[in-house]
Parts: sequence; structure tokens; C-alpha cells
Amino acid sequence: MPIEIKKIAISTGGGDCPGLNAVIRAVVRTATLKYGWEVVGIKDGLQGVMDTTTKLIPLNRHNVAGFLQKGGTVLGTTNRGNPFEIQKEVDGKIVTEDISDDVVENIRRERIDAVVGIGGDGTMLIMNQLYQKGIPIVGVPKTIDNDLLSTDVTFGFDTAVAIATDALDRLQTTAASHHRVMVVELMGRYAGWIAMHSGIAGGAEVILIPEIPYDINKVAELINQRMKREGFAIVVVAEGAKPLGGSHSTLEKAGSSVERLGGIGYKVAAEIEELTGAEVRTTVLGHVQRGGSPTAYDRVLSTRFGVAAADLIHEGGFGRMVTLRGTEINDVTFEDAIENLKFVDPEGQLVRAAEEIGVCLGR
Amino acid sequence: MPIEIKKIAISTGGGDCPGLNAVIRAVVRTATLKYGWEVVGIKDGLQGVMDTTTKLIPLNRHNVAGFLQKGGTVLGTTNRGNPFEIQKEVDGKIVTEDISDDVVENIRRERIDAVVGIGGDGTMLIMNQLYQKGIPIVGVPKTIDNDLLSTDVTFGFDTAVAIATDALDRLQTTAASHHRVMVVELMGRYAGWIAMHSGIAGGAEVILIPEIPYDINKVAELINQRMKREGFAIVVVAEGAKPLGGSHSTLEKAGSSVERLGGIGYKVAAEIEELTGAEVRTTVLGHVQRGGSPTAYDRVLSTRFGVAAADLIHEGGFGRMVTLRGTEINDVTFEDAIENLKFVDPEGQLVRAAEEIGVCLGR
Amino acid sequence: MPIEIKKIAISTGGGDCPGLNAVIRAVVRTATLKYGWEVVGIKDGLQGVMDTTTKLIPLNRHNVAGFLQKGGTVLGTTNRGNPFEIQKEVDGKIVTEDISDDVVENIRRERIDAVVGIGGDGTMLIMNQLYQKGIPIVGVPKTIDNDLLSTDVTFGFDTAVAIATDALDRLQTTAASHHRVMVVELMGRYAGWIAMHSGIAGGAEVILIPEIPYDINKVAELINQRMKREGFAIVVVAEGAKPLGGSHSTLEKAGSSVERLGGIGYKVAAEIEELTGAEVRTTVLGHVQRGGSPTAYDRVLSTRFGVAAADLIHEGGFGRMVTLRGTEINDVTFEDAIENLKFVDPEGQLVRAAEEIGVCLGR
Amino acid sequence: MPIEIKKIAISTGGGDCPGLNAVIRAVVRTATLKYGWEVVGIKDGLQGVMDTTTKLIPLNRHNVAGFLQKGGTVLGTTNRGNPFEIQKEVDGKIVTEDISDDVVENIRRERIDAVVGIGGDGTMLIMNQLYQKGIPIVGVPKTIDNDLLSTDVTFGFDTAVAIATDALDRLQTTAASHHRVMVVELMGRYAGWIAMHSGIAGGAEVILIPEIPYDINKVAELINQRMKREGFAIVVVAEGAKPLGGSHSTLEKAGSSVERLGGIGYKVAAEIEELTGAEVRTTVLGHVQRGGSPTAYDRVLSTRFGVAAADLIHEGGFGRMVTLRGTEINDVTFEDAIENLKFVDPEGQLVRAAEEIGVCLGR
Repeated sequence: MPIEIKKIAISTGGGDCPGLNAVIRAVVRTATLKYGWEVVGIKDGLQGVMDTTTKLIPLNRHNVAGFLQKGGTVLGTTNRGNPFEIQKEVDGKIVTEDISDDVVENIRRERIDAVVGIGGDGTMLIMNQLYQKGIPIVGVPKTIDNDLLSTDVTFGFDTAVAIATDALDRLQTTAASHHRVMVVELMGRYAGWIAMHSGIAGGAEVILIPEIPYDINKVAELINQRMKREGFAIVVVAEGAKPLGGSHSTLEKAGSSVERLGGIGYKVAAEIEELTGAEVRTTVLGHVQRGGSPTAYDRVLSTRFGVAAADLIHEGGFGRMVTLRGTEINDVTFEDAIENLKFVDPEGQLVRAAEEIGVCLGR
Repeated sequence: MPIEIKKIAISTGGGDCPGLNAVIRAVVRTATLKYGWEVVGIKDGLQGVMDTTTKLIPLNRHNVAGFLQKGGTVLGTTNRGNPFEIQKEVDGKIVTEDISDDVVENIRRERIDAVVGIGGDGTMLIMNQLYQKGIPIVGVPKTIDNDLLSTDVTFGFDTAVAIATDALDRLQTTAASHHRVMVVELMGRYAGWIAMHSGIAGGAEVILIPEIPYDINKVAELINQRMKREGFAIVVVAEGAKPLGGSHSTLEKAGSSVERLGGIGYKVAAEIEELTGAEVRTTVLGHVQRGGSPTAYDRVLSTRFGVAAADLIHEGGFGRMVTLRGTEINDVTFEDAIENLKFVDPEGQLVRAAEEIGVCLGR
Repeated sequence: MPIEIKKIAISTGGGDCPGLNAVIRAVVRTATLKYGWEVVGIKDGLQGVMDTTTKLIPLNRHNVAGFLQKGGTVLGTTNRGNPFEIQKEVDGKIVTEDISDDVVENIRRERIDAVVGIGGDGTMLIMNQLYQKGIPIVGVPKTIDNDLLSTDVTFGFDTAVAIATDALDRLQTTAASHHRVMVVELMGRYAGWIAMHSGIAGGAEVILIPEIPYDINKVAELINQRMKREGFAIVVVAEGAKPLGGSHSTLEKAGSSVERLGGIGYKVAAEIEELTGAEVRTTVLGHVQRGGSPTAYDRVLSTRFGVAAADLIHEGGFGRMVTLRGTEINDVTFEDAIENLKFVDPEGQLVRAAEEIGVCLGR
Repeated sequence: MPIEIKKIAISTGGGDCPGLNAVIRAVVRTATLKYGWEVVGIKDGLQGVMDTTTKLIPLNRHNVAGFLQKGGTVLGTTNRGNPFEIQKEVDGKIVTEDISDDVVENIRRERIDAVVGIGGDGTMLIMNQLYQKGIPIVGVPKTIDNDLLSTDVTFGFDTAVAIATDALDRLQTTAASHHRVMVVELMGRYAGWIAMHSGIAGGAEVILIPEIPYDINKVAELINQRMKREGFAIVVVAEGAKPLGGSHSTLEKAGSSVERLGGIGYKVAAEIEELTGAEVRTTVLGHVQRGGSPTAYDRVLSTRFGVAAADLIHEGGFGRMVTLRGTEINDVTFEDAIENLKFVDPEGQLVRAAEEIGVCLGR
């Protein structure tokens, strides 16, 4: 049910994601130009409304200029912003406290009529709880891993895939010239979407993802064939990839310090070197994947999400998150939004397509 | 109904499109690696099977290596390849002839069991007619303008939008520094998808598309405001954009020679200069938009289309074209495929989103 | 001779150039971090110090953050900023006035101890005159055309060549697929450096530059051979290219209105079409070439120029402009700086190299 | 002294380098189009002429088409190709053998009149020895590290710097959003040119190079200040960077296995984390830096080197290597070419410029 809106706030939770600023810009332009609302940004997730001294940034068409192209987020991010479970030190012990009433009160005192919450499933959970407490909130999904079941795509994902694919393109030529195996570790702790899309786009011979535990012997076998035939191979490894049965052949014993020195990429590289005798080199793209200017695709998606969020506020569609289904923007309840994560289906179209063109998924 | 396949052929019709080679590669890899078929490419649309001396290129995993990144098409393209209406000179007069029986016979003589036809609505029409004559054919949609109703997206479109957006990014800073209006003419003769997406992604103030006849006075008005407030403006013009009522204010009289010297971009630029007094510069991106290496998005889509086409042959799904619906590959009959074009809806989500963030569509 | 410095000003003249903001950033950081000076930017060339109400922007490490990547210029540019010859309307007539004394006085009143003047040969001429009047000035060369004899390279040039080459790369594949001639008009009114470098880097078959009047029949001849052999050709035309003898075959008569509707690119395209019968398409890159983020090369050069300018002030090297010779930064007097322009030598190494690999220079 | 040439050969030694194919293309085009010579490429360094069964690839204008944009090398590379010191296993022992007479004989038997040797200082040493034995050879310098004193620049370097700078750009925004320290390990085992140029172009706060042993406490101190003021920092580490005195604070003891699991980047990251308490993330770009399509700058330089090498053969300038001095191509004797490496001068212009804008070099 529509309520009268004069002022709205924007909050972003979780990590950096290309397109985040473009969402903020679209919300601000729609809110100010079409609806005549005032807009403020809440600093650092919800932390900007946790204390009585609020940290709010006035946002208008002028200070969001250039936001389409800009990576990062002007509002700052945080992973420690759940007001329902704030950790405090009391008498030397860590205790958990619920300060959500303060947040509700601060938002009301600032005369914020509605909130746009941008974030992943963790953020949506919190937004839903605040909504249950009476704050009119609409949500915008944000996860670079593209692992929300309620939306076909999330912004930032296309940019991450583009960056990773560009790196794979460059490695192709040098791998070919040097007769080497190149292992590239990409993002994807729980879902292998970035690895799948980049690996297919970049012509990888092997793609290892969290959803399909890999058999290193199958990998080695394919690489042996490939090295004989073509003389080089590209192996994409999602950071959450895991071996079948969970036992690494050689490196497990080196202990936990190995873990922090490198990632799964180095492990897979060492195992391939051992099993095939090929020269292997490793690249860890790391945060390069989630920074910088968003692709045109992500800018359009972000803009549409931002406009739709403002429209949803105008229509009184609170407690709902905007989504993309096919070519149309839609929305779902917070409950539906966070119910299930979207994993790469080991028997789905994408995996089958990869295997049909000869890519080894490690099985 | 599945038939036994030993050899398939690939034919591409119409213009160049980033991702075309990636489709060919995916068909070839799936056909050879998964199904064990032989594959040939037909040179220059269907021309390679019009004469008894066929022009066929054997395709295998080795000679399609590197095709993911490669722009253009290795099979050559043509716009003069309809075997049902071949134009010939007979006794000094141009007559139209139907040589489709020859095509059918040549395809059979070459023992081609099935054909993958890649092309736009014109190509699909021909493919359907050949299919009606008994050739087992499956189709893959190809139009850089993304104007087929039967599929959410076609490959090449994302690349075109990315290139155009990159140009708009560059023009932003120089327009701002020089206090100028920059007019950029983009592709889109009948449908304004490229202009809409690029314009939104590149932060254009004005987007003129074929679907919405523009009122140059509305455009001039917005530019006047914008020049006062920000000192510069970006105007995106699809090549098929048309003025309201169809009358150009000043340049119409210059005659048809003007047309070939430049495009609508120059006309709009001259009119804006006349009506606003602002300094205007014009860029005509032209074929830059349809060349070069495809984006990661287009490579994945192309690969999935290619795999699906081979699978469709395997399943005996002849007379059908692969499509994308949401995140899933699907297929439709040739009749459904070519029934309707997909235009930008003047009252649809995308246009409304653009207008809500303050973009002028010339109305 | 060193003087005591407390405050310096930066002035930029002429057009936009990638790297301009990076020069400003380097001057500001060196001035503040190393020397402890205050820095202001003069708005719109020298216009910010022409009136008693000066327009000065305080610059510090914080507000130049992000300037390395940023195209355009934060100080604004102007081509109407010569205080020695200001045009005013007096009694309905345009008269020229010398207000340089006002400029000198305003600079002194603002307690500006020294000025960094960034610009091309026109700007350096003015800077020299102001220096003669007692203002301590050092210069930084700026011309996207790279046409100053006193320095090996100027910033912005590498970026322009990179953008143009990227466009040529994309046209290669589409020209090849469509059997076409692609004409690309690039910047370069008087000097053909951008056309030469981009043309060589992008594999053009023909490069037409202002320094070598072209014989269109020679061009047509080469294109005919090329079309027979390869089926496509790329023609690069600098905007200042001129035909031998100065007569265009067909289009001259269409009159001056043609000129503003398009550039020399369209003329050359029409002539080639007429003489060869080939299908020709034209791209006018325009201001896309001078906008956007600078290349790494230009950022390093800009930074080194900015640092060197601040050092030159510290050393009291007034009346001098920084330059690059080989890999070292150097400096020359304003007189030497502006004495001669650097044109492409029709008998020099670069032209000979192009011709030896088979490029046609139109002669 | 000129000799009559009918057939030349091209040999490439050492690692992959963007621009290598562009050099080959320029040699081939100049040799065939201007001089009318036949050209062959020697496979895998000099290995193609070590056995009586030579491995030679005929090269002509057709099979070098597209080489401007192509990364890698078509001739293959090798690091085990010194015919003066071939290692063989004889009776279970490794012995060193000189088979250079075979090489000379094979070259003569193939009627190769002259050789273009492309490579780094190791390759030039071998080329010089072969030249002393009577083979007419000219050289083209190739080192991605840009560490040859005899030439201002080598091809590939600009591309490597561009790729690294692009990664730094992306890390800037994500570091800023997440309040993190980002450590990026770049190429440069002995010379820090890539790290210096990329670090300056990408706005790094810290640049650690082999030429300046770093004091980790100085680094930590600067990062502490920076984190307080800006909340994030970028640290560039050349792979050959070394701590002052050579002792790592914490990780040294973990043993040599650490070395192969990651590089110096991980070590520096761990130390910074320990000393500053900041969250640190590491990126290892690896071979991404030396692959893929060369920049426009590198394509022009490569082309000029290739043309000059062919010209040098024509003029009889054997025993010499082409170089770039300022804007002109020149040449030096093999002895001069390999006499000295070019290191970053700790007291030179580039380092001083970096320090003047506030970059910490770890001292």
C-alpha cells in the first residue's frame, strides 16, 4: 500500500561489486527527478544508523554524476553490520546484543520514510527483520557470485566474468608459446558461476567448481592428452573447488599455513605438476575481479534495478526485492528472495554444454 | 524424430556478428567430440551449395581453435543467397529463378545429413523453405540488433553495446572539458536496442530510436537546460531514428546526396546547433560496432547456442531454432522464430526506466 | 635562480588531452608533499586571473585523488584565453585589447609565486610573454597531435593512438567478412602522427596524412590489387589529408556545406567507391580519440612532466618548458619550445618503414 | 658489406613477449615485398637447425596476416637452445657438447644467406658466437623486462605495464571500498621497470623493486599513516624484490616449500598484516602480463624493429642489433648490445619522481 514519501535512505551491505554505484545513481535520479524525494545514503551498511549520531550522506543528481562508470561504493561497505546481533565486549567477554530498536528509532528520528537495502542473502535477512519491525524497505540483490535463485542475474557478475576471461585470453597465447599448463584461481567460494562462464568464454580445458568435487587423476589424464596433442592447457579453479573425498595427494600434510599463503590454485598446480610432469604456472586474480568500472551489461542491469526499487517504494511494495526474470524486472518477497541459493547444477544445461565441447569438470 | 547422422553442414547468412565463429566452434566440437560426426562449412551463405561444384570447408577441432576470440566469420557472408529467388541476367534482362532443387540435390549428393543454419529472420525464412523441401535443418538466431521476438537475446548484441558504451565513456570527459554537445550515431535501422542499452550504460542525456519519432524542439529544450546546468550533453542517435512528422528543419532540402555523405547523426547535430547555439561534434561509430572479439557474455551465449544446435540435430528436432529464455536454452519452430520482430516498446520497462532517470527520448 | 616559493598556480590552455589531470596531480603532490607549497588551479585557461574577481581552485592531495585515471580536465579549457589580445565589443565594434597587465597584477595580488602553464605552442607563446613581463613561469607541453619538435613525445598521443588502433582492429574482421573497404577518419589537422602510428599498429593498407598530398589514383590502384588478393582493405585518413594538386574528383562541387556535414573521410570514401566499384564504409572516430582514461604510458609521462615542472620551479628554472628526450626528462627555453612544429618527414624512418611493409601513402 | 641475399631465416629465443609476431610479420613483409627474398622461420629457437632434419616454416605475407594483434609466437620458444653448450646424457652422465658446427652447416645447406635473431642478452651472446663463425646475423632485442642498456625500450614492455596498470585500477576501487591493503606481485626478477611504471601509472603507495632492498618497517609505517588517512593502500612488489639484509621477519623459517607455493607477494602481505594489523589481500598476475595482444605502442615498435632488421641485412650490417634511441631506430654491435643490463637507478629520475609524489620505495 503506498504511503506518502518525502525522504528515503539507501544502505549497502557486504562486499564491493561493480555496478553498486550505478544502482545508487539510478535510485537517486528516479527519486529526485521523477518523485521529488530527498535521498540520503547510510554510511557503512547500517552502521550509519546504529548510533544516535547518525552518519548520513545527502545524495543528489550532482554528487552521483559519474557513478555509472565508477567501481567500488561511495557508501563504504562492511561485513559486521547486523543490528540484531551486534558483538560487544562487556567485562572482558564478547556478548551479543540486539540494537535493532535503536536502528528503527534512528531511522524514524531522521524522518526517513523508506529504505532501499542493497545486498546479498545476509543483508536481505536483516532487511526482512527490520521490515517486520515496521520499517518500509525494498531490496536490491547484490552478489558478485550470481548465486541467488530468485533472480536470473545479479549485477557485477558480468564484469567479474569479463575480467577473468580477459586474463584467460592472455594466458592462452603465452601457454601455447611456452608449452605450459596455466592454472588460474577465480572467485567462487560456494557457487562456481564465475568459473563456469569465464572458463567457457576463455576456452579453458578444465574447470573445477565447488559443486562438483574433482578427481585430480581425471584432470591429469585430460591434461596429458591435451599436452600431447596441443602442447598446452588452461585450468580454471574456483576458490571453493574441492577434491573428491577431500584428500589432497601431496600437499595436505604441509599444514594449515599453506592455506593462507596461497589458495586452492597452488594446490591444484602442484598436483598437476606431480602427476603429469608438465610445467605449470599459477595466477591468482583475486580482488581484481570485483573492482573497477562495470561492463555495459552491468550498468544497464544496475540502472534498471535502481529505478525499479524507487518505483517499488512509490507503489508501496515494501518487504520485496527487485529481480530480473528473462528481460523483465520483477519482484519477490524477502522470504522468497533469500530462501534458496542458486548453485551450478552438475546435471544442468551449462555443465552439459561445457562437457559436450570437451571441457573436463574433474569427473 | 532422430535420424542417423554422419555428416552435418554449417551455413551462415547475413552480416558479420561477434560470436559467429564461437557458434561454429561449439557446433564443430560438440558434433565431433560428443557425436562423432563429420562437419563441413558451406562457403558464403548457401552459395557454396548452389553450383554442382560445391564450396565446402572441412571443419574440425583443430581449425576452429582460437574461434572464441575471433571476430568476423570464417565462412564468409553474403546478402545475396536466397536460392528460391536467385537473380540472373537472361538476354540482358534480370529474371528471378528458383534453384532450390539444385541446393537440395547438392546437399544430398554431398551426403550432408543435416544443416545448422545461422542467421536472422531472412535466413530463417529460407531455412524453413528448405526444411519444407525435406532438408533436416536446425537454426541459430543471429542479429546484432537483437530484434527477434522468439529469443531474449542474440549474440553480438552485448559486444556492440559494449563498444558503443566505451565510446560514450570517452566522449563524456571530453564533452565536459570542452562544454560541447556530442552526437553519436549508433547502429539500429529498425530497432533501437543498441541505442537504448548503450545510451543508458553510457549516461546519455538524449536517446533517439526508430520506435519513437523525435521532436527536435523537445531535444533542444532539454539540451538548453542541461548546457546551463552541466555545460555539456551526450546525444545518442540510432541510424534509423526519424523526426516526428518526418520533416527535418533545415537539411532536408540539401537533397539525397547528403544522405550518403553522412547519416542521421549529422542532421541531428546540425539541428541542435541551429536551435541551441551550442557547439556540437558528431561521431559515427559505424562498423566498429560489429567487428572484433566478442565479449565474454557473447562467447558463452554463442557456445551454448552452438551446443544446443548440435543436440537438436541429435534429437531430431528439425525445423526448429534455438533460443534463450531467461537462463535456459530452448527452441521454437521456424514459423514462430520469424513471425514477429522485437521492437523497443515505447511504453515498456526499458523506455520508462530511461525516462525516469531523466533521459530524453525526444518526446 | 631559485626564489622563495610559498604558493603556485596551475593553468591549462587549449583542448582536452588524456593525461592532463595526471600532470595536475603530479604537480600538486610534488608541490605539497615535497616542497610544502600551496597550490591553486586557475579556471578556464588564464580567464580565472583576468578579472579582479579571480577564479581559483585550491588543489591538494585529496582533491586530486583519482586524477591518474580521469580523462578531461578539472580546470576547464578554453581557446579564447590570450590576455594580450582579448576581443571586446566596444560601441558595436570588435576591438582587440591587451589586458596582460591585469593578469600580472591579479597573479601578484593572489600572492602566486610561480605558475605552471600546460598547453600547446599557442599557450607557450602566451606563457613566454607573461614570463617576459616578470611572472615566474614553467611550461608543460600538451598536444594530442604530438607535433612539438622540442620533445620526443607529448602525453595524450599514446592514448589517441591506442583508441584508434582498437577501432582498426575491430574493422579488420568485419571488413574481411564483408569484402569491403573501410575508411577511418582520424585526428591530425596539420601533422599525421596519429594516422601513421595507428595505421601501422592497426595494419592499414593505406594511410593518408597532411604531409604527403595523396594521388587518389594510386590509392585506387592499390585497393584494386588488394581487393582481388584479400577481398578487403582498411584506409586511414588524417583529417588534414589533402589530395595532390588540391582537386577532388567529384565532391568539390557540392560546396562548402559538405565540409561541415562530414570530413575528408567521406570524400575519400566516395572517390574510392567511384574509382574501384568496391563497397566502402566510413567511420569518423572524432572526439572519442581525445577522451577517457589515459594509457599507462601517458600516465607515467604525465606524472614525470608534472614532477619535473615542480622541480623546475624549485630550481628557479623559469621561462623553460619540460620535455622528454629518449628516456630522460629535460627542459628547453620557451623560445626553443615553440620555434618549430614536428611534422611527419615524408622521407623519414617512419614513412619508409610503412612503405617497406607495403603500406600506400598515396604517392 | 652487402652480400647477395636470396633467402633469410628468423630465429626467436627465450620467453613469450607481446609484439614478437609483429616483428616476424615486419621482417617477412619487408623481405618479400621490398627485397624479394624468401623467408623461413626456424622452429623452437635454434633447435630447428640443430639436427640434419631441419624444422623450417616457410613464411610469407599470407601466413603472417593477423600477426600484428596476435600474442605469443608462431615459431615456438625455448630456453634450452644454446648449440655451443648442449647437454646430453652419455652413459648415464650429463655432458656438455658444442654442436655449433652442425648449426652452421645446416644453415648453409638450407641455403640461408642471413639470419634475424630475436631475443634477450642470452640469445644475443649465442648469435654473436654464430656470427663469429661466419653466419651473417642481425639481431632484434626482446625482453619484456626492458632491461637492455643498448636500447631505450624493448617491445612487450609497454603491454606488460598496461596489463598490470589495468589490474591496479581495478584494485583501487575495491581496496577503497573495503578498507584493505592490496598487494600485487608483478614480473621483474632482476630489474624493476615493470613495477616502477605500473606502480606510478596505477597510483600505488608502495613499490618494491630488486634494485632497492626494502625495509619492511618503513613500508609498514607508511601503510599505517595511509590507512588512517585514506583507509586503503596498494603495494606493488616486483617478483625479485628483496628485504634489506635479506631476512624476512616471520616466514623465512617456513622453509623452501613456501617459495614455490607463492611468491614474494605473499611474504610481503603476511609481514604487512603482522606489522600493521590491516586486512591484506594478494594478487599474483603471473603470466597474464606477458600474453595477449600487444598495445599499439608495442606494435609500432615491433614493426619498426622488424623493418630495420631486414634493412640491416640488405645493407650488410651483420653482427649488429637494432635499437631505439629517442624516436629513431639505430643499431649497435652484438658486443655493445649485451655488455650491460639496464637497472632502475636508485638515484635516477624515475625513482626520484616516484618518491617526490609520495610513493614509498621501501627505504
